[in-house]
This record gives sequence, C-alpha cells and structure tokens, in this order.
Amino acid sequence: MSRLFMFEKPLGMRDTLPDLFNRKRMVRASIEREMERWGYQFIETPTLEYYETVGAASAILDQQLFKLLDQEGHTLVLRPDMTAPIARVAASRLLKNDLPIRLAYTANVFRAQQREGGRPAEFEQIGVECIGDYTVSADAEGLALIISSLQEAGLEDFQLSVGHIGFARTLFLEILGTEERVDALTRFLYEKNYVGYREHVKSLALSSIDKQRLLDFLALRGGEEIIEIAFSLLENDTGREDLLELQQLFEIMIDYGLEEKVKFDLTLVSHMSYYTGILFEVYAGNVGFPIASGGRYDLLLQKFGKTAGATGFAIRIDRLLEALKEEGANVPVYCILFSPERRKEAFQYAAEQRRAGKRVVLQDINGVKDIDQCTNQYDDITFLVGKAGRETGI
Amino acid sequence: MSRLFMFEKPLGMRDTLPDLFNRKRMVRASIEREMERWGYQFIETPTLEYYETVGAASAILDQQLFKLLDQEGHTLVLRPDMTAPIARVAASRLLKNDLPIRLAYTANVFRAQQREGGRPAEFEQIGVECIGDYTVSADAEGLALIISSLQEAGLEDFQLSVGHIGFARTLFLEILGTEERVDALTRFLYEKNYVGYREHVKSLALSSIDKQRLLDFLALRGGEEIIEIAFSLLENDTGREDLLELQQLFEIMIDYGLEEKVKFDLTLVSHMSYYTGILFEVYAGNVGFPIASGGRYDLLLQKFGKTAGATGFAIRIDRLLEALKEEGANVPVYCILFSPERRKEAFQYAAEQRRAGKRVVLQDINGVKDIDQCTNQYDDITFLVGKAGRETGI
Repeated sequence: MSRLFMFEKPLGMRDTLPDLFNRKRMVRASIEREMERWGYQFIETPTLEYYETVGAASAILDQQLFKLLDQEGHTLVLRPDMTAPIARVAASRLLKNDLPIRLAYTANVFRAQQREGGRPAEFEQIGVECIGDYTVSADAEGLALIISSLQEAGLEDFQLSVGHIGFARTLFLEILGTEERVDALTRFLYEKNYVGYREHVKSLALSSIDKQRLLDFLALRGGEEIIEIAFSLLENDTGREDLLELQQLFEIMIDYGLEEKVKFDLTLVSHMSYYTGILFEVYAGNVGFPIASGGRYDLLLQKFGKTAGATGFAIRIDRLLEALKEEGANVPVYCILFSPERRKEAFQYAAEQRRAGKRVVLQDINGVKDIDQCTNQYDDITFLVGKAGRETGI
Repeated sequence: MSRLFMFEKPLGMRDTLPDLFNRKRMVRASIEREMERWGYQFIETPTLEYYETVGAASAILDQQLFKLLDQEGHTLVLRPDMTAPIARVAASRLLKNDLPIRLAYTANVFRAQQREGGRPAEFEQIGVECIGDYTVSADAEGLALIISSLQEAGLEDFQLSVGHIGFARTLFLEILGTEERVDALTRFLYEKNYVGYREHVKSLALSSIDKQRLLDFLALRGGEEIIEIAFSLLENDTGREDLLELQQLFEIMIDYGLEEKVKFDLTLVSHMSYYTGILFEVYAGNVGFPIASGGRYDLLLQKFGKTAGATGFAIRIDRLLEALKEEGANVPVYCILFSPERRKEAFQYAAEQRRAGKRVVLQDINGVKDIDQCTNQYDDITFLVGKAGRETGI
C-alpha cells in the first residue's frame, strides 16, 4: 500500500483514543442507568439491515445511506438510525396484547458524508422508544426522561424546543392545497432558512390574508403563550387537536416540575419523515447542532404490519460530550518494571495491587528500549530489577 | 414491502433482546474492568476501513469481507477483526519512542456467511493488544490476562491450547522445501483434518524418515513434556528458538501460578495469516469453537510503516456466554399506573422510587387497552387512579 494512504480512514470515520473513550463510556453509563430506572429495556439490533425494509423506513436521504449487496443480490444498508430497526423488532417479536413497551439502545449509526472535514459518518446515539401508547403522557415522558438523562450526564445548560409536525403540515395543507407545495415550504423550515421561507411565501399565488398567516406562522416560537397565538391562525378546526396536544403536554411538564426547560417552536420540522406529531430538539451551550431530538411517529409501525402509536428520542453522544466540555477524570496507571529473576515477586505484587482496584502495568525490562521514557508514561513506577529491594512503591 | 420479507434480517444478522443484552453487558463490564486493572487502555476505531489498508492486513478470507464502494470509488470493508485497525492506530498515533503500549477494545466485527442458520456474520469481540514488546513475558501476560478475564466473567471450566506457528512452518519448510507445500499441509491442520493430513503426508515424495517426522509432529499435543519430544524431531537448529520460547513461556506461567490452565498443541495453526510466533486458543465446556484466541504478530505493524513486536488476543462474547450458560439476574421492574388527575402524585412517587435505585415504569392508564395483561408484565404495580389511595405499593 502507498505510504500516504496507509493511515487513512474513510471519509467521516474517526478513531476514539483512551481519554475520549473513557468520557464517552462514563456519559453513556450514567444515561443508561437513568433510562433503566425509568423502566426502559436495552436491546441491540444488527449493524446491517435490508434496504427494502429498514433502509426505506429510516427516512434518511438515499445519498446518505451506506449501501452494499449481499450474495443473493439484495441491497443492504448500514443502519442510518435506530428508530426503524427498533420498530422492526418491536413489531415482529415484542408487541403483545397491544401493551406499551419501553425499549432503549445505544448504538452507532451511519450516514455517508460528501466532503472531507465535515460531519462524522459514524456516530453513537443513545435513545429510547415507547411503542404502543398514543397518549400525550408518553410524549411528555420522553421530554422528562431526556431532561433527566442529560442532567445525569452532568449537563445543566440546555433547552428543549417543542413543535408539532402535524400542526405545521395541516395548516400548510389547508392554505396551499397540495402535499408538493407543503413539502416545498417545509424544506425552508428544515434548513432554518427563514429568509428563503418569506421570499417563497411572497411568491405564492395566495390571498394576502393567507400569505400573512404563513408569515405569522414563523413567529410561533417562545413560551406557552405562543400556543394561544397559534390558535388565532386557524380558520376552522383544522390543527386544533394538535395545539390542544401541545397545551396538554405543557400541563404535564408542569406536573413533572420541568416546564422551565421547555420552549415551543412550531416552525420545528424534521428531516425524519416518519414523525407525525409532537417533535422536539435539544440545544446546549454553544454547540451548533441539536444534541438530541425526538418525537412521535404513529405510522412507522404500520410499515412492519402493526398499528401502534410510538414516541422516542435519541441523544448524540459526540455532541453531548462537546456540550459537557469537561475533561475526563484521569485514573492513575502504575507500572512495575521487572527483570526475569524477580518475575514471580513482581506478579504477586501486581496481583495484590490489582485486587485493591489499582491499574498496574507489568513490564519486563527486556521489552523496554528507553527506560526513562517508559518511566515518564506512568503515574508511578516500581523497579523489581536485579537483587535489590523495591526502589519505589505504588 | 412484501409481508414475508418485512421482518427479515440479512444472513447471519441477529437481534439481541433484553435478557441477553443484560448478560452481555455484565460479562463485558467485568472483563473490561480486569483489562483496565492490568493497565490496558480502551480505544475505538471506525466500523468502516479502507480495503487497501486494514481490509488487506486483516487476513480474513476475501469472500468473508463485507465490501462497499465510497463516492470516490475506493473499496471499503466492514472491519473483519480488530487487530489490524488497532495496529493502524498504534502505528499512526500512539507508538512513541519504541515504548510498549497496551490497548484494549470491545467491538463488533463482521464476516459474511454463506448460508442460512450458520454462524453469526456480526459478533462482539473484547480483546487486548500489547504492541512494541518482543519478550516472551508479553506473550505470557496475554495468557495470564485471558485466564484472569475469563475467571472474572465467571468461567471456571476452560483450557488454553498453546502452539507456535513459527515452529510448525519452519519445520515444514525444512522438510518440504517450498512455501506452497507448507501452505498445503498447514491447511489440513487449520481444518483439524488429521486423517487428511496423514493421507497427504503419505502421498508426498519424501524419505520415510521425513514422512515419520511429519506424522510424529501430529502427536505434539499435551503437557510441557511434548516440548522435549518436539526437540527430538529437529535435525539441526531450525525451530530450536521457537521451542525455547515455549519452554520459557511455561516457566513464566508457573510464576503466575497458572500452569495448570495451559496445555501445548504444536499442531495449532490459525486462519489469521499475520501470526508469527506463539499462538493460542481457549476452549470451554462443550462449546464447539474456541471462545478466545490470540498470538504474536511481529510483522503486522510493518504494513503500517513501523517495526514493532506485538501480541494480543480476542474473546468472543457470544461463545463465552454460551459457555457460561447461567441466566442473567433478573432486575425487577415496577409499574405505577396513573390517571391524569393523580399524575403529579404519580410522578413524585416514581421519582422517589427511582432515586432509591428501583426501576419504575410510569404508565398513563389511558395508554393501556388491557389492564390485566399490563399488570402481568411487571413485578409489582401501584394504581394511582381516580380519587382512592394507593392500591398496592412498590
């Protein structure tokens, strides 16, 4: 292989060295524990799925999918998200008697990137799915659990933006008349291109009243009071149910004592096309992208032959770590450098120290070319060399 | 999508449901802790690597590689093992001043399977690599750590078979003269086809003395005494160094107090072509395949531009679980079933219980169609419904 190419990794692929690994593991473990305390059960699904089933259901842009062919000519994908695989497992093996089930996962997902230095093409998500429950209580539980999980991970400064994809699309459809026009307008929201949205609205062949309704829609961001304003944009009952859901959600969050973490943003839409109802994103500190997102997807289970309401969220571990910023606690590593004649003594001493929970490297001195450099690597070093006693102790 | 296809997973791909997930996690955590106590540091590498670098270095049969093309036309592979990626990271970022480094990983690896109902195509390995150390002490540390790791995971009944690929190939080359003939004979050993090996030896154009040496080679399985017998197969110094290494290894294992776990099997060869020296497999109970394997690979780092001795091993979590057989400890999950008017009380009660470490599902009664069935799902259930008091307590 060529020397330049030798160390290369594919576009968007990254190594995780010990310090970051340890921070990831700590954060993951604290969130896992919290999700389990809320009664969510962890499962694992394969990295590869059929394109025809999970790939298509995942709602990730086709060009972002890593695809390959199996030996029978079926197209496989590296899972681009976990919601669709979890829906497959739930529908095929876990949903019984229409009972709500609560599942959790921590998994790497894959989204091909187009250019160097951009976003990671493989990243870890930890999330939950509550499947088989249509109540707003289930949505609120998602918000409460995400808040609680992030707090357990040590994050304090963050905010939830809650929207309702049903409301946005219903209102747009009433005004615009066709799904295609709704998609075109929604796209500006997804890209958070509000200037483009305004230009687009002005260019539409609509009454000035309807144009104003679409422009006023953009202002529906803020506290619970914006729900009342949203009601005023309605001309009939269309969209009313969706707004009532948001009001109910807010009431439940008050009962959790968590209403201060929640803001509304009715312009929030998602690139995940399976969402049908309440949806939300979490922003923290000055991380430019949401560190978590989720929502209700009542129609996805139908792709796997079941009718069941569902809601869930996923936290991006890499972005959460960016928001946390703290250094990981550095666990000291000791070293016992031994020569063969004192090997047995070294082994026994190491075993003793390890039983006490310490991290101890045992190193044959014949395996080390530069002893000074080796010594610098460790927090303390014990020499068991030649016939002398210990030079330093751990 | 077609109804039959809907729930399907690609060949060899599996879901891991909660019970198995919990057992896996417990076993993984106990081994991780032990590896860290021995001073190994965990890292993570990408699932996808370039075929030209890691794929080719991995020494897994080409037909077992999952391959795909990236947007620039480079071939990518799903990593078929972790030794080659770790070697890449060590060579490019971690090896400094020729100091031995100790790395660990837990990762899924991928090997395409040819038929239904066969082996898993994705499975988890937990392992270590000690890079930059040519001493037999480093090999012995691998054996000692694998024993200690398996014991920490709760495994008692297991045995290590230790061989030396250098010895086998050197002896064969001396007798057979060409690498091609060595490969042909070695293949029988890899397949553990001893009848085929004997037939093949008999068919070769060799002196009857050399034929007998190759047939006697097959008997080199047993305690340390077989090393002495192996010496008697040598006609000159070729292979002598390798046998001295094995003797030294056994002496070190005595100092660890672990010699009883070690048997020799000089017919042991590996399908991993990068091994150069001592190699070993671990068998447990009546699991048909090795639950762990490892060895020395002093030439692999050269593929990444460094000269460094290295040794390591990997434990297959799925096979270890099969050997352990025990059921996981079932953690009780409680449920609080509430109606909206008592929601706040339910939230506070759940928070209290969760703070005490209990696993508590909060379920809005409006999300449940069949309350009896729901009740059966949990270890205990508390009704906070209507205006009455609690019906049962957690």
